[in-house]
This record gives sequence, structure tokens and C-alpha cells, in this order.
Amino acid sequence: MADTNVALIGLGTVGSGVARLLMENADRLARHAGRRLVLRQVVVQDLKKPRDVRLPAGLVSTDLSRITADKDTQVVALLMGGVEPARTIALKVLESGKDIVTANKALLAAHGEELFARARELGRSIAFEAAVAGGIPIIANLSQCLSANQIQSIHAILNGTSNYILTQMEAHGASYADAVADAQRLGYAEADPTMDVDGSDAAQKLAILAHLAFGAHADWEKISRAGIDTLDLADMRYAKELGYRIKLLAVAQLTAAGLELHVSPTLVKLGTPLAEVRGAYNAVSVVGDSVGRVFFSGLGAGQMPTASAVVADLIDMAVGRAAITFRTLEMWSATAPRVPISDFQNVAGRYYLRFHVADQPSVLAEIAGLLGKQDISIASVIQHEDEAAGVVPLVIMTHNTTEGAVSRALAAIERVAFKRGPSVRMRVYN
Amino acid sequence: MADTNVALIGLGTVGSGVARLLMENADRLARHAGRRLVLRQVVVQDLKKPRDVRLPAGLVSTDLSRITADKDTQVVALLMGGVEPARTIALKVLESGKDIVTANKALLAAHGEELFARARELGRSIAFEAAVAGGIPIIANLSQCLSANQIQSIHAILNGTSNYILTQMEAHGASYADAVADAQRLGYAEADPTMDVDGSDAAQKLAILAHLAFGAHADWEKISRAGIDTLDLADMRYAKELGYRIKLLAVAQLTAAGLELHVSPTLVKLGTPLAEVRGAYNAVSVVGDSVGRVFFSGLGAGQMPTASAVVADLIDMAVGRAAITFRTLEMWSATAPRVPISDFQNVAGRYYLRFHVADQPSVLAEIAGLLGKQDISIASVIQHEDEAAGVVPLVIMTHNTTEGAVSRALAAIERVAFKRGPSVRMRVYN
Repeated sequence: MADTNVALIGLGTVGSGVARLLMENADRLARHAGRRLVLRQVVVQDLKKPRDVRLPAGLVSTDLSRITADKDTQVVALLMGGVEPARTIALKVLESGKDIVTANKALLAAHGEELFARARELGRSIAFEAAVAGGIPIIANLSQCLSANQIQSIHAILNGTSNYILTQMEAHGASYADAVADAQRLGYAEADPTMDVDGSDAAQKLAILAHLAFGAHADWEKISRAGIDTLDLADMRYAKELGYRIKLLAVAQLTAAGLELHVSPTLVKLGTPLAEVRGAYNAVSVVGDSVGRVFFSGLGAGQMPTASAVVADLIDMAVGRAAITFRTLEMWSATAPRVPISDFQNVAGRYYLRFHVADQPSVLAEIAGLLGKQDISIASVIQHEDEAAGVVPLVIMTHNTTEGAVSRALAAIERVAFKRGPSVRMRVYN
Repeated sequence: MADTNVALIGLGTVGSGVARLLMENADRLARHAGRRLVLRQVVVQDLKKPRDVRLPAGLVSTDLSRITADKDTQVVALLMGGVEPARTIALKVLESGKDIVTANKALLAAHGEELFARARELGRSIAFEAAVAGGIPIIANLSQCLSANQIQSIHAILNGTSNYILTQMEAHGASYADAVADAQRLGYAEADPTMDVDGSDAAQKLAILAHLAFGAHADWEKISRAGIDTLDLADMRYAKELGYRIKLLAVAQLTAAGLELHVSPTLVKLGTPLAEVRGAYNAVSVVGDSVGRVFFSGLGAGQMPTASAVVADLIDMAVGRAAITFRTLEMWSATAPRVPISDFQNVAGRYYLRFHVADQPSVLAEIAGLLGKQDISIASVIQHEDEAAGVVPLVIMTHNTTEGAVSRALAAIERVAFKRGPSVRMRVYN
């Protein structure tokens, strides 16, 4: 069978990993693909930058036209980050008649609709397994393996950096700042980890999963999100006392009112699969109406897990499966049926609330009263003595209520005289 | 796009579920497949048997030739169990020019090579996602999504009946016999659960997974296996005391000496994903050289989870992906590279051993001596007082050794005078 010629754009961590797989495991990949995948061209922005992989002389250049003009290259792995110039380059690659495999979730979250429409016009395909959850093949599982199902919910840990930080805080009692510094030292967090720890990265990935599973067109910037950057070790201890562990959970849940989408630190019951996901691992728990609950976990980032996903897509492109999937699913198509996104204020759930209050009589009664005004009833309470004299932390687990009711109750509690510090609220997933 | 016409052979639990999905969710499936899947024919052995689904008059018959002679039927879901007449029917269906989707693992374990060779000769395809691990799409994940990897190991819970029984025994302190009776009452176990509880069912599935992941041609009857039917509640208590839970684990592990394949009750460390798999769930933990560890869990059997897998295969057949995968992978091909199967006696690991011994001096020293003669060193010991006067259970966790060494040591220990009952041995998975 004829070879499939592949080009890479970007030779950072993931690009180097893909190049290594293509060169060092050529025979094995040929066996799995029924043909050879030949690395023909690599285009980078800076030839002088040190690289993680040794490539034959003449393979690497800074000239995109060497790829777009090469009639014998069929597939391009677009492995640079960021939105521009990745978007412009992707359009040029499609227009030159080549298919694209990409790991760039920011690009898809921002311009998926445009890129997929252009690919369809040109009869080209785009595959993006590596864009979400690294080594977990969640894109293929949602778009193919579970295709007999109406997906009902997705609960996922999609940011490995945050999960690593949470695991370190919990296991070693490290502060948030120390855990971040540790993650940076080990390469799990970037110098500026904002997008990872504030929930933005998880929201971008959730937007992509929600589109695949529900046909929802969600602007990721409008997905309600909270990060782990405001978490306190005290909350981890209280969570444990209540039988939970805190995870940055990305949720897509189909209800009669539409699709709920949100990302936030959430109390997850100990002993359940999501609670046991440690370190830099990601996980996705999917409920389908036929299959029931299916759970996936694996490394969410890193050179070789992501390269594994990119190369699986390259093989799918080479054998023709990716083109079929792309044509069949009409992803990001303007004509696809749309699912309305629920108003976040109406999203239901149980909540963990923590207040710092003056150690004086009737405080609990007053807070319970303010919660009660919003029809929020209390499931359990923890009150321990605190180190700061005269101030006690008060932890409340609620019964089922809504985001809106909790927000209104907390606004009222903000105004009481006995309050001594900021309140904490987290969703609870049972 | 043209419809795809589908026929079913067998209308038991799974067949009824598939028929329901095809009829009740036709629009949704059409959206996921880009064309309609139309149920044209159902063939059963007994028209009078009560069924779980209502079908239009005229759809059901006992006449296989109504399917094989129908030029407009493209795919047949072969959903009857057992080896014959399923094998003969499968050959007739292939010879009539139709592709096959099946959930019949016994058929594939016994005659995969013959059926796949015949399909290749005839230009037809066979898909079998539902044959292993029910709703977990492990076939697609091993054959497509992880195809960039050399798979290094598979550790899996592949029999939901056994896992349900183990979970009941552990959670409620139920005896093996009571847990089996309970599983039978709830429909998780058949009237004769032998194949489920003795490890045979898991060995059949392991043979299929090992073929996909390693190209190993393993006769499932030659896979070393032990079942849960000899387990004692006491062992569950000791396992827990040592920080483990007992699971019926199917293992395929690549080593320098070849591929290790075995099924046995195994101590799995508490808090790890496999240990937390409860009830009728299955799970598969796969390590690939690029992706690292990827973990999957889901319902291992049952009407709708299995039907979900069958219908995903029907969609893959309809859109053409399944034919590509079948042609590319050359499954059960005589020309595929083969992996040698290791001698089970050389398989390494740690072991849990339990002895019933007379409560007298020097017993531990003597047992330790007999283990030491086989170079087996002891990692930890539990000895509690027992209810039976004069007899104590002695539990030993070993350091790393081999199956052969443990067998030789146990044979020697069988002959000592202070032994008071049968010994127990289980592998340990860390």
C-alpha cells in the first residue's frame, strides 16, 4: 500500500514527541496503519531553538510553503499553540489540499466553526484527539464508540496541572503557592499558570466535548467557571472530614431546561473513580442512555501521551477513517441541531459553604435563617475551634438547591455584622 | 445518503436491546451515522418464545435464507450465543455477501481465525466490540485509539458476575454461596455460573484482547486460570488488613521472555482504580509505551450496555470505518507477526499465602524455611488467634518470586505434619 506523507508544523514538546514516534517506531506504526507514515517536512518558527529530537538534515525549515507546495504530503500535524498565527496557517494548509491533525484546543475553541466549515468546502478533514485530555481517547469515544447513545452527562477532570496541585496540597498539606511552585519546577505548570488554575483551559476543553456529545455551540468564555487559585487547605481538611475530595470538575449535564455547562472546584465523594484520580491524570465520566456510566482516565498532558493521540489521528487519516468520521458527524456545522445552554443561575446541586464568623451566640441560627429564606436547607454542619481567638470557621453542607439561591443567600450573609472573612462556596458531586 | 439495512440473528436479551435501539432511536442514530439504519429482518430459533421487544408483524422468522437471500441487507448482527450453530450461520452470512457484527466471544475465541480468514477471502468484515467488556469500547480503543503504542500490559476485570459476587461478599460479609444465589436472583449470574466464576469467560475475553494488543494467538483453554469459587471470606478480611481488595484479574503482560497471560483472584491495592471497580462493572487498565496508563470502566454486561456496543459497530459498518479497520489490522491473520506465550511457571510476582497450621512452636520458622529453599522471602506475616482450638491461620505476603517457586514451596508445605487444612495462594498486583 502507498506511503502516507506527513508534515509537522511546530516542534515544541508535543511536536518533538510526534517526530520521535514517527521516526523511531516506523515499522510498528506501519503494521498498525497498513502503510508507512513518512515524515517529509517540519516547519518551525525559530531554527536555532534547541530541540528534543534529532532530525535528518534538510527536514526542518521555517518556510510554510515547503509544506503547502508539496503535492505528495497528505496530512499536516499542526502542533503550535495559541490562536494566531495557528488559524491563518491552518487555513493555508487546508487550502493547499491537505488534512489537519491538531492538538490546539484554544484554536478549536475559538475558531472551530470557521475551520471546519472551510475544511468541508474544500473536501478536507480535521482530527483533534490530542486537543482534549491528552492520552485519553475521549474524542474518538464520544464521536464513534458511544454513538448509539444519547449522552446525558459528562463529569471530567480536564486540567492535569490543577489536579497535580490539588493532589500535592492534599497529600503533603502544601499551600496553594508551594504546590504551584512545585508543579512549575517539575514542568507540570507553566511560568504563568493562570489559564490552567483559573478553569479557562478546562472550559475550552469542555466546550469541545459538549459540542461532540450534545451538539452544543458554547462560547467557552461564557462557560461559568471558578479555579483552584482561591482554595484553602482548610477546605481540603473539611472536605475529607465530610467524606469528599476537592477536584476541579468540568460538567456538562443535559436537563429538561437545556445543557448545563460549568467548571469549578467541586467536592467529589471519596472512593468514587473521579475522587481517586491523582497527580497529572485526567478523567472523564460519561453517562449514556444505553451504555450507562463509562469512565476513562489517563495522563492529561505531557509529551508522549499527547503524541500518542496525535499519531493515532495521523493513522486514522492515513487509513481513511478520520475522513469518514469528519464527513459523518458534521462537527461545528451551522446546520447541526443545537442544544440550548441553561442559565447558570438555575443549575441545581448541593453546596459546601464555609464562613468565618465571630464566636458568639445565635450566629448559626442567623445563617440558617438567611439560607432558609432562599429555601436552602442544611444537610450537615461542622464547627471547630479556630486558632484565631474569637473567630470560628463554620462549614455547612446544603441539601439540593440552585446556584442562584446560593448566590442570593451568600449576598445576604455578606452583610451580617458577625462575619469575619470571605466566604467559600463549592459544588458537591455525589 | 442511502439507508443501511440491518438484520438480526437472535432475539435474546442483547438482540432485543439492539432491536429497541434501532427502532426507538432511529432519528438519533441516523444523525450519528449520516444515514438511517433500517431493521429489515430478524431470525430466531423459536417464534413462540416471549420477547422483550415488540416488532412489526412479518419482521421475525425462523428462516435464515430470508436474510442470506436479501440482496438489500448489508449488515447482520449475529447475537446468538455458543459456538454451534453460530459458526455455521456466520459462514453462511459471510458467503451471502454480508458483513457481521457480533457479541459472541465464545465463537471468536474458538473460531476467530477461521471466520476472519473467510471474511477476508470474501471481501467482508467482522466487528465485535460487544464481545469483550460490554459497554466499555475496549476493542476500538486497542485497535484504533492506542495504535501509536506498543501495548506493554493489560490488567482487567472482565467478568461482571464474578465482580458482583466479590463486591457482595466484601460489602455484606456474604458467603460465596449466598452471593452467588443473590447474583442469580438479580439476573447477574446464570443458573449454571461455572464459566463466569471459574475464570473461563474472562480467559476467552483475555485471549481476544491479547490478540488485538499483542498479536498473540492464544488458545483460551490454555490460559492459566483460577476462579473465585474457592474464595473464603477470611481471605477478604486478611486482604483488607493488608491494604488490598480481591478482584478476579485477567492479565496480559509483555516481558523479554514473551507474553504472560493468566486469570486469577488477585490482591489489588486499595485506592487504585481497579480496586474501586464495584458490582457488575468491568474495567481495563492498559499501559502503552507512549500513552502511559489508560484506564477504562463501564458495565460489563446487561442488555443496553451490550446493545450500545453492537449498535456502535453497526454504525461503524454503515459508514465504512469498520471495513477499513478490518482490512488494516489483519486480525487473526496467519501472516501477522506472532508473540510467544510465556511459560506460566516463570511468571513473576508477589503472593498472598494462607495456611491453616497447628498452634505450636516453630511452625512459622519451618514454613519460612521451606519458602526460603525456593528463594521466596517474606514481606509480611499476619497470625491471629482462630476460633478452632489448636489451629491458627497464618497469612504471608511474599516479596517478588515466580509461580513455579511458589508451587514447589506449597508442595513441600503440603507434606508437613503441622498442616491442618488446605492452603490458599493468590497473586498480588501493586
